[in-house]
Amino acid sequence: MENFSICTPTNYVFGRGTECEASRLAAQAGWKRVMIVYGGGSAVRSGLLDRVKDSFTAEGIPTIELGGVKPNPTDDKGYEGIALARMEKVDAILAVGGGSVIDTAKAIACGTLYEGDFWDFYCGKAAVERALPIGVILTIPAAGSEGSGNSVITRIEGLRKLSLRTDTALRPRFACLNPELTFTLPPYQTASGIADMMVHIMERYFTPTEGVEVTDRLCEGLLKAIIAEAPKVMAEPENYDARANIMWSGTIAHNGICGCGRREDWASHFIEHELSALYDVTHGAGLAVITPAWMSYVSKSKPAKVAQFARRVFDIIADGDSEAAKLGVEKLRNFFRSIGLPVTLRELGIANPDIPTLVRKLHENKGPKIGGYIPLTATDTEAIFRESL
Amino acid sequence: MENFSICTPTNYVFGRGTECEASRLAAQAGWKRVMIVYGGGSAVRSGLLDRVKDSFTAEGIPTIELGGVKPNPTDDKGYEGIALARMEKVDAILAVGGGSVIDTAKAIACGTLYEGDFWDFYCGKAAVERALPIGVILTIPAAGSEGSGNSVITRIEGLRKLSLRTDTALRPRFACLNPELTFTLPPYQTASGIADMMVHIMERYFTPTEGVEVTDRLCEGLLKAIIAEAPKVMAEPENYDARANIMWSGTIAHNGICGCGRREDWASHFIEHELSALYDVTHGAGLAVITPAWMSYVSKSKPAKVAQFARRVFDIIADGDSEAAKLGVEKLRNFFRSIGLPVTLRELGIANPDIPTLVRKLHENKGPKIGGYIPLTATDTEAIFRESL
Repeated sequence: MENFSICTPTNYVFGRGTECEASRLAAQAGWKRVMIVYGGGSAVRSGLLDRVKDSFTAEGIPTIELGGVKPNPTDDKGYEGIALARMEKVDAILAVGGGSVIDTAKAIACGTLYEGDFWDFYCGKAAVERALPIGVILTIPAAGSEGSGNSVITRIEGLRKLSLRTDTALRPRFACLNPELTFTLPPYQTASGIADMMVHIMERYFTPTEGVEVTDRLCEGLLKAIIAEAPKVMAEPENYDARANIMWSGTIAHNGICGCGRREDWASHFIEHELSALYDVTHGAGLAVITPAWMSYVSKSKPAKVAQFARRVFDIIADGDSEAAKLGVEKLRNFFRSIGLPVTLRELGIANPDIPTLVRKLHENKGPKIGGYIPLTATDTEAIFRESL
Repeated sequence: MENFSICTPTNYVFGRGTECEASRLAAQAGWKRVMIVYGGGSAVRSGLLDRVKDSFTAEGIPTIELGGVKPNPTDDKGYEGIALARMEKVDAILAVGGGSVIDTAKAIACGTLYEGDFWDFYCGKAAVERALPIGVILTIPAAGSEGSGNSVITRIEGLRKLSLRTDTALRPRFACLNPELTFTLPPYQTASGIADMMVHIMERYFTPTEGVEVTDRLCEGLLKAIIAEAPKVMAEPENYDARANIMWSGTIAHNGICGCGRREDWASHFIEHELSALYDVTHGAGLAVITPAWMSYVSKSKPAKVAQFARRVFDIIADGDSEAAKLGVEKLRNFFRSIGLPVTLRELGIANPDIPTLVRKLHENKGPKIGGYIPLTATDTEAIFRESL
């Protein structure tokens, strides 16, 4: 096990009606003027936004709105939000939505208090030292951004999709998680979220570090829970307990607890980020294509951990590690298919991917080798794209 | 799943050499004058205490010492510490030790800022509103107090052992966890710590709440990891990875993550607290006796969750729930025996327990019914004591 430090100070308030707690938590924290960031129309149409605004008004906290955040959020919305936050002199940000909304709120939170270009944080030119405090009302269980210190933004110029990691600076102060708000999610979005959270666990699970049984077992347990609950939410979108299990899994999958004591991988995410930057596909669906291909590829030279995954998560019985790994990848692909996700680029709607450009941008953004389990060169990543066709 | 909220703001710094981080973390937090609380001589003899004091001196932070905390810590040390903290005007407390030391530090932390008798917090007369900040250097993985907001203290008058639970007021600001500091723990203390952390998980696992698959799977995964690593630390006390897995398991077992979304049980702890209050046995060893007896007793009327435990944690294959539960209890007792723990009161050194007094005090302290999985009356708890003989 390797040395690590972890601090997860987010106050999670989970269950029915908890979106109404946000204003109370904001008042307790002494927030005086709050920007509410949200996405498309669903938060408006469902009445959620009005309910939230009313509850802030009742607490005597004025709110300013910034809507229109899109999936695979882009830097322009960050700049817009930073300008608005400065003009309106807000002292806190409330994200009402899923990962794209929260990640945009984080960009605004650190950018508002920074004199330079907030993109400096994403491309590694500067480290976040301070940020406006953030609260979350989650509507899409997927990205885990409600419990993480991370944010992913795409720069429109050059379509560079980069992620920013902070220890605690960008972790939300509180996150209100009401599973009922996810009852109306379309099936494809529900399924993509499930793939996203599973891969958040797997990126941490596939590690070169030995002797991390406790973190392995936490990862395997979470994956087993998600695999058990996923068919239930797909079949019964209003099954509260199933939605609750999925929602809470998505948070724990990415708040850091699944990575303690080891190097992580993240190759599948880096590869997928190029796909969704270039073709604007849903991130989780892209991962459902890329991750099994990545597993299959790395199994050829290093099957042990993939075999452990197969045996412990999917109860595969097989003698050799290579055979177990192969059956495990097959099971994972079948699982993704069973909840309506694509497992090839063609099924994802990318019939003729520009693999040379994808590979070039990937290594330009992330260096000549990517991933912790096995460091992958451009030859390897090209092979993984080809395996995904 | 039931509504819940959880906030675990403790900054965990884990790995080799991390005891030297405490002074830096204290300086970062702005601490000016720190009381170091510790137990018997081992922290002195090993040189740990001197190392810690030197590192605080190097940061320019004066320290005041309070040693001599005993296992099953008593209220007298709390009063002594509160008087000293006030006289010396300390603004923070560093606990160097295991659960007894940390729990005493917590009593001092809340008692120092309270005008009344700190025992009010433990017997439920008052709620903790503020406390001095606490840091921890952990030397015994067992109680999980380094990551919890709880504290257990025994009042000498009447030997009342009561627990105090807070959401965040008494959670340590930071905890330095160096597995190397546990290499020299005697085998009985190592094994007792393992039983303690396992039962912390099981008290949360045995719940009447349905639909909590994610929390169930986290509990089962942690238990499986502990069961796999325990024989290694018993056989090779200086196996770093095994010690690290056990240490981190002990923290997660009790920081709240294993109880999310459900009612908990805690009957075994309440029963054991009477044993260790009256006979001063090691808490974890007492639990190794009581918990299997409790499981066996509740299985008679409600075997389902015990059977799930047996199947998922110990891989028991059995048709009926009653049979599976029975085999699971047997496996658990065998496991405790295999690491050198007692599983009967006689083996624990209590040949003739005063069961009427134990039962009377238990229900005086905790009410006519105890436990969440099945609420137990005095008739039930008496039967559990008899089953433990």
